Amino acid sequence: MAEGVTALARRMLAGDRRALARLITLADDGGPGLAEILQEIHPHTGSAHVIGITGPPGAGKSTLVWALASEYTRRGRRVGVIAVDPSSPLTGGAVLGDRIRMPLTGRPPGVFFRSMASRGQLGGMSRSVRSVVHLLDAFGNDVILVETVGAGQSDVAVRTIANSTAVVSVPGLGDDIQMLKAGILEIADVYVVNKADREGADKTAAEIETMLKVGWAAAQEMGQALPDDAWRPPIVRTVATKGTGADRLADAFDEHRRYLMSTGRWDAIVRRQTEAELQEALLMQLEQSLADGLLAAERSRLIDAVQRREMAAVEAARRLLENLRDG
Amino acid sequence: MAEGVTALARRMLAGDRRALARLITLADDGGPGLAEILQEIHPHTGSAHVIGITGPPGAGKSTLVWALASEYTRRGRRVGVIAVDPSSPLTGGAVLGDRIRMPLTGRPPGVFFRSMASRGQLGGMSRSVRSVVHLLDAFGNDVILVETVGAGQSDVAVRTIANSTAVVSVPGLGDDIQMLKAGILEIADVYVVNKADREGADKTAAEIETMLKVGWAAAQEMGQALPDDAWRPPIVRTVATKGTGADRLADAFDEHRRYLMSTGRWDAIVRRQTEAELQEALLMQLEQSLADGLLAAERSRLIDAVQRREMAAVEAARRLLENLRDG
Repeated sequence: MAEGVTALARRMLAGDRRALARLITLADDGGPGLAEILQEIHPHTGSAHVIGITGPPGAGKSTLVWALASEYTRRGRRVGVIAVDPSSPLTGGAVLGDRIRMPLTGRPPGVFFRSMASRGQLGGMSRSVRSVVHLLDAFGNDVILVETVGAGQSDVAVRTIANSTAVVSVPGLGDDIQMLKAGILEIADVYVVNKADREGADKTAAEIETMLKVGWAAAQEMGQALPDDAWRPPIVRTVATKGTGADRLADAFDEHRRYLMSTGRWDAIVRRQTEAELQEALLMQLEQSLADGLLAAERSRLIDAVQRREMAAVEAARRLLENLRDG
Repeated sequence: MAEGVTALARRMLAGDRRALARLITLADDGGPGLAEILQEIHPHTGSAHVIGITGPPGAGKSTLVWALASEYTRRGRRVGVIAVDPSSPLTGGAVLGDRIRMPLTGRPPGVFFRSMASRGQLGGMSRSVRSVVHLLDAFGNDVILVETVGAGQSDVAVRTIANSTAVVSVPGLGDDIQMLKAGILEIADVYVVNKADREGADKTAAEIETMLKVGWAAAQEMGQALPDDAWRPPIVRTVATKGTGADRLADAFDEHRRYLMSTGRWDAIVRRQTEAELQEALLMQLEQSLADGLLAAERSRLIDAVQRREMAAVEAARRLLENLRDG
C-alpha cells in the first residue's frame, strides 16, 4: 500500500491523468493512505488559484463553470473542476449524478472534472474537497473551480477552501431577498447575474448593489469600517449558455487574484486555510485514535454513563482526553 | 464564578426564569462556565421531546412554531422555543432579529423563547443549540421546539439534536423539486404543507407523497429495504396564521414520540445524540488545549512549516497530537 501510493503520486506528478483519478478516489474515501498522499504531494501545491462558485439551485452554475473553464483554457491555463453535490441523507449517494452535472457537449478538452458528494457532515465535505483541491493543484492546474450546489452553510464553507468566491444569481428567481436575509450574498468577491438576457437582469443587479451598500453601512455602524484598500466586489453579467461574459468573469477573478497578491491578503487567506486544514486533520486523527480498541471501549462505557445521567458529555470528553494523553 | 454558576443552576432548577435566561447567555457564549453548567444540570435532563422544525425561507415556520406552542400549552405541556437564525458572515450578528421572528401578538404565555445566531461554523451551531436544549429540558419543559431557517446542512444538523423533525413546505413556492433534489425532504418524520388554504396545496402534498415513494423505492433498490415497523411520515396540512391544523400536527408529533418509545428507537436516537455531543465536547476541549501557551506556539510554528511546504497539514496535526499527549 505504502509503495503503491508513492508510486501513484509520482506518476500523477509526471502528468498521468489515470493516476490522478485513482488518487482522488483514494482521497475521497478518506482511507489510511490519505495522509501519505497529502504528505507526498505537498511540496508541489500552493500555486493554483482556487475559485468557489456558489448560489441557489437553478442559477445555471454548472453551465457557467464550463463557460469559465473554456475561457481559461483559451487563455492557456490548465483548469480543474470539482462539483460538490448535495448527498441524500437516505441513500448516502449524490443526488445529482455526473449525467446531469457534466454537459456532454461544450466541455473544453483537457479539463479534469470530478463530482463529489457533500456527505452528511460539513466537516467531512471540506476535508475531502480540500484534499482533491491539493491533488488538482499538484497536478499542475493553474485554476481550480469548485462549484457548490444549494444555499446555506456549505456555501460559507467554500470560503475556507477558495481564494476567490463568486455568488451566482439569476433574474426572476424570486428569492433574492431571501438570499440577502440569509447573509449568503455577503461571502462573495464577485457577483454574477447569470441569464442576463432575461427580463429583470437590471433589477437583480440593482438589488445586489443595494445589498452591498446596506452591508457596508451596517458594518460601519458596528464600528467595522472597511479599510481604504478594501475589495469592492464587481457585478458581472453572463449568459453562460452562450458563453457571453465568461471573459469578463475570468478578468474579474484574475483582477481579484492580483489584488490579493499585491495587498498581502493572499498569504493571509492561505494561512487561515492552513489553520482550518490543520483543525480538520486533528479531528480526523483524534477520531482514528478513539476508534482504537481500548479507547473505543472506554468511549462506549463513558457514553453509557452519560445516558445513565451519571455525568455530562463534557465530563466524559474530559476523561476520554485524559485517557488519550496517558495511553 | 464557580459558585455563581452552581447557584444560578439551583435557582433555574427551582423555576427561576431569569436564572434560566442568564445560564442560556453563558452557554451561548461558550465560556469556561459551560462545562460546569452542563455537569450541574445533567441529572435533570432527558425527559423533553425535542422537535425540529425546518424548511425553506417563506414557509411560515415561525408562525407555525407559535401555533404549535399554543396547542401544546393548551394541552398542559410546558413549551420552550429556540429559533436558530442564520448569521451574517460580515457582521457576525443574526440577520433576522427577534423583532421579526417573535410575533408580538399570539405568543402563548409561559413559553420560553430564545433566538440564537447560527455562527459561521456548523459544529459551533450544534454545540450551543444543544446546550440550550439541555437547559430548557432541565427547566422542566415537556416540549422543546427548535426552528432552523434556510435549507441545507443546518437542516440535517437539526436531526442530531431533535427526537422528531418536521419539514415545512408551502404551495407554489416553486422549489419543491429543488428541495427534493437536495435530499432535504428525506430527513423529516412529519411533513407539513403550511398555507394549505392556498391554491396548489393538493399538488404540493402529492409531490411530497411521490417523493417519499421514490425515496423508498430507491432505498429498496439499493438493498436497504425498510423494516416492517418503519415509520411512515404523515403529511399534515396547516394554516398557521389561523392556527388550523396545529392540533393534528401536535397529534402527529405525539404519535411519533410514542412510536419511538415503543420500538426502542428513542433510546437509539438519544445514544447517537450523546455520541455527537461527546464528539463536539472533545473538539471543544482539544481546541482549548491547543490555545494554551506552549501548544499554541508549537501550533503556530507547525503552520509556518506547512506554508513553507516543509510538511503537509496532516503531518503537522500528527506532531501536534503527539505534543498534546506528551505535554
